[in-house]
Amino acid sequence: MATYQAPLREIGFVLNEVLGVGRLARLPGWEEATPETLSGIFEEAARFIEEQLAPLNKTCDEQGCRWENGEVRVPEGLAEAYRNYWQAGWVGLSNPVEFGGQGLPYLASKVIGEMVCSANVAFELYVGLTQDCFEALLACANDEIKRTYLPKLATGEWTGTMCLTEPQAGSDLAAVKTKATPNADGTFSLEGAKIFITSGEHSMADNIVHFVLARLPDSPPGVKGLSTFVVPKFLVNRDGTLGARNRVHCTSIEHKMGMHGSCTCSLAFEGARGWMVGAPNTGIQNMFVMMNLARIMVGYQGLGLCELATQNAIRYALERKQGKAFDGGETIVHHPDVRRMLLYMKAITEGARVMAHETALHVDLAHRHPDAAVREQAQDWVELCTPLVKAFCTDSAFELGSLAVQVYGGHGYIREHGIEQIVRDAKILALYEGTNGIQAMDLVRRKLMLHGGRLPQRFFARVRGESTGDAPLGFIAKPLRQALDELEATTHWLQESYKTCPNDAGFGAADFLRAFALTYLGYNWLRMAKAAANHPDAGLRETKLATAQFFATRLLPQVATLCANLRHSSADYMKLDARNF
Amino acid sequence: MATYQAPLREIGFVLNEVLGVGRLARLPGWEEATPETLSGIFEEAARFIEEQLAPLNKTCDEQGCRWENGEVRVPEGLAEAYRNYWQAGWVGLSNPVEFGGQGLPYLASKVIGEMVCSANVAFELYVGLTQDCFEALLACANDEIKRTYLPKLATGEWTGTMCLTEPQAGSDLAAVKTKATPNADGTFSLEGAKIFITSGEHSMADNIVHFVLARLPDSPPGVKGLSTFVVPKFLVNRDGTLGARNRVHCTSIEHKMGMHGSCTCSLAFEGARGWMVGAPNTGIQNMFVMMNLARIMVGYQGLGLCELATQNAIRYALERKQGKAFDGGETIVHHPDVRRMLLYMKAITEGARVMAHETALHVDLAHRHPDAAVREQAQDWVELCTPLVKAFCTDSAFELGSLAVQVYGGHGYIREHGIEQIVRDAKILALYEGTNGIQAMDLVRRKLMLHGGRLPQRFFARVRGESTGDAPLGFIAKPLRQALDELEATTHWLQESYKTCPNDAGFGAADFLRAFALTYLGYNWLRMAKAAANHPDAGLRETKLATAQFFATRLLPQVATLCANLRHSSADYMKLDARNF
Repeated sequence: MATYQAPLREIGFVLNEVLGVGRLARLPGWEEATPETLSGIFEEAARFIEEQLAPLNKTCDEQGCRWENGEVRVPEGLAEAYRNYWQAGWVGLSNPVEFGGQGLPYLASKVIGEMVCSANVAFELYVGLTQDCFEALLACANDEIKRTYLPKLATGEWTGTMCLTEPQAGSDLAAVKTKATPNADGTFSLEGAKIFITSGEHSMADNIVHFVLARLPDSPPGVKGLSTFVVPKFLVNRDGTLGARNRVHCTSIEHKMGMHGSCTCSLAFEGARGWMVGAPNTGIQNMFVMMNLARIMVGYQGLGLCELATQNAIRYALERKQGKAFDGGETIVHHPDVRRMLLYMKAITEGARVMAHETALHVDLAHRHPDAAVREQAQDWVELCTPLVKAFCTDSAFELGSLAVQVYGGHGYIREHGIEQIVRDAKILALYEGTNGIQAMDLVRRKLMLHGGRLPQRFFARVRGESTGDAPLGFIAKPLRQALDELEATTHWLQESYKTCPNDAGFGAADFLRAFALTYLGYNWLRMAKAAANHPDAGLRETKLATAQFFATRLLPQVATLCANLRHSSADYMKLDARNF
Repeated sequence: MATYQAPLREIGFVLNEVLGVGRLARLPGWEEATPETLSGIFEEAARFIEEQLAPLNKTCDEQGCRWENGEVRVPEGLAEAYRNYWQAGWVGLSNPVEFGGQGLPYLASKVIGEMVCSANVAFELYVGLTQDCFEALLACANDEIKRTYLPKLATGEWTGTMCLTEPQAGSDLAAVKTKATPNADGTFSLEGAKIFITSGEHSMADNIVHFVLARLPDSPPGVKGLSTFVVPKFLVNRDGTLGARNRVHCTSIEHKMGMHGSCTCSLAFEGARGWMVGAPNTGIQNMFVMMNLARIMVGYQGLGLCELATQNAIRYALERKQGKAFDGGETIVHHPDVRRMLLYMKAITEGARVMAHETALHVDLAHRHPDAAVREQAQDWVELCTPLVKAFCTDSAFELGSLAVQVYGGHGYIREHGIEQIVRDAKILALYEGTNGIQAMDLVRRKLMLHGGRLPQRFFARVRGESTGDAPLGFIAKPLRQALDELEATTHWLQESYKTCPNDAGFGAADFLRAFALTYLGYNWLRMAKAAANHPDAGLRETKLATAQFFATRLLPQVATLCANLRHSSADYMKLDARNF
């Protein structure tokens, strides 16, 4: 069976020796969030996660959520684990103290999120969306709504959803049809059908808070006519007690490839009572508060599964005897092709961890840093890197899950080992919260263009600053500079071609996102190599330096190939009549 | 739901306009296997496959094989479909007329195999292993065994298995422990446990013929001490009727990620009566007759799933409306990122089809051509390309299945659409019949080295001969020549480094296999472009030329990157203590 041991040493290395997370404790209000305190919290969380969530992962997959007599039944043990989890304060870790949270940095909750995603990725959906729903209401809702919902969402006592998708409106939110009609008392009546609603119905929490995209009467067409509403499963009385059942009902749940512990619901809004969040027709902006956070969360799901795949493949390769290697070794870790796979998995997972945690760190800096210029720079980083974290970590989760199966051989294909589950769970990550194709378009159409191209410029300057100098780290600094040159030239090509021939930019977007992420990982491996170069732990030092070299020689060169590939016209492809395909 | 329409036009294009399969009819005994006759047979097969096998694919996945009261129950409808299939003569299509087959070329049965694999890949396992078991007995068994088993295997009335794997012996057959003790009557008693035996137990056929790897008493250790035995489920009386149940029993079946329509059995041999096939201690050679054919069959499974993924993604992209594209189109095929995925899928699938069918064609030439030099060249081609067909087509099936899910978006993740099944079914293909890592090692350790490197030399000469000349096909001929130069240089590097530092060769083997296969596909796309350049069908002409260009600009350049990657020492990686991973 797949097992999980929280990689606390590696997380500590990244946070403290690469990213210098100690600086968070110098920000106002986080004086106590020192590396030592955070490390103690992570250890405690790891214990809970390893003991209570990891063993449930297989049950979640095998039993799945069931739709019985109009009720969603979650897998055995899940409701109890969820209750233990929120009551222990883990959901509310980074939420404001005034609403019952613990007021720690966002990064701290994401580090724990990584561990939860490794141990039980479906579980994280209940927690993560609740957290993201909290943030959206905190940013956009009026005081009454905040008072009503935030304290319960902050702790996780109630769970949250985001209700966007409809059968005809997936990637294209302009096609959303759900209607919200004003009532005399200032509330709204919602009518419509939503699909693919994660945690849309269950009985693990006393109430479910739906954050819904809908259309007011006579609103403009397209995305500019969308508004957001909060629609609780149970209406909330003035005194905070629960009232009548609202007219939003689950009509069915999906049978999916994986992620079976998470219920994916079709919801019917049949005159459900809702309260508008934010101004009329600002729904897309409001929803994006939630969606951007959800995209980072999904990136963490990818990171978590990368780690799970990698550590299980390593463990199995150290144990499994099969054939005699060239060096006489009897376990398969001595076979060069197996070792290549393991190093690839390590290079991706450890590099992606720096990317994800650095992005989360910048969310905190953007919120709390006293210097407005630093806040702006941090916000630029978050916006640029959100599609990278989302798409790269999730594509990698699927790829590394498949490699883990490969290391296990035929045994990996058998369900009882729990390895093929990683592949099945991972595939949804590349689809929801905006497919990875949408992420690539977000990067190219929006993030490269904002503020005259300021976001990538700042990124390139930072990486270039770090990659000057050669010996003894020239083995990675030099190919990183080459990759950066290619990436920068390609960025300019895309910024131009998007204006004149957006199809070319669109055709190259996915390859560009991958090239960008690999360059970012090269930057991370350079910094890890620096931090490891004189490290007292010889095992860590040698392994890090060799993995950095693996990344430099076998992954960074892909940047130039990807960039060269995409700097071509797509005209010959776009003009084809696809009916001849 | 995933649907399947046999790509008869494309198959005809490959066979007749690219590979010139008409030459088969000039070989002795195949005078009637003209392109017209074959085309008629393929049409008839396609009808059967589309009508009877494709609709069963989902049932197979949903119901799976069940282990109930000591019996394997196959999904509803499968036994009937299998009976209809063999009785219609499809199993025996290429088997010798003297044993009840129809004596057509191997290629013809593989073309039908491709279609079966698209429609219902699990079904093909029952057929394909039976066929491969037939060939092994035909090549290695004595006349009595041939008389007893071949007529029933030739038609598919009985099915066959290959029994190699044991819990401790997967990739490493040297560890096989099953014992065969001679009896006084010349038979043997087999004792041992085999796992992962495809079609090991079912009641779709009256008898099951196990081809078993086992060890004689006092045989040498390792693979040199293995012998092969035929062990029937029911003993066969002298008059051909079935006698007593043999002492080989299924003890359980596996629950797998996919391929649910195929039963994967654990078998206990408890004094089972067997007959030796071939000489003592020649088991590995005998088994390789079967294994080599099985590897090509698995490659065809990959090709079939590539086609299924590609045609479903195209169909969905032509239907699904979502957002407005830059060119104003309303279906998603107008979105450049979707179109990129579809062209990638086409470029791989159509290129792989030429590779697979050309390899099958060479099996026929190696058997039947009157000129010994041609037979030798053909045999070289088959040996070199078997690991390419097996590994590249199956890796691609998994990748393209995942891309098909991506084109479907969230709907692709829902089981009812049948698209995620492709991913789950495809993953086993990279594992069984030798993992794709084993295929890469077979290519590097064996196929590059045989006869002083003659196999790749002949391949390179053929590709180079085709890729001379430039306009109007220089757009692909030129990058193909560059890829070939890189591949040839890397081949020499591997031939040398394998002698001095086999770990380097092993570390680079998987990348080398991919580089080799991509070069082969470049050669195929050049030939397809030539055949299409003046084609009267304008749609085919334009689509083929644009897809060839896509391959030339976006896939062929990967060869140089892969080759550069792998020409590095692995010493720094191999010396790491993996306990620090």
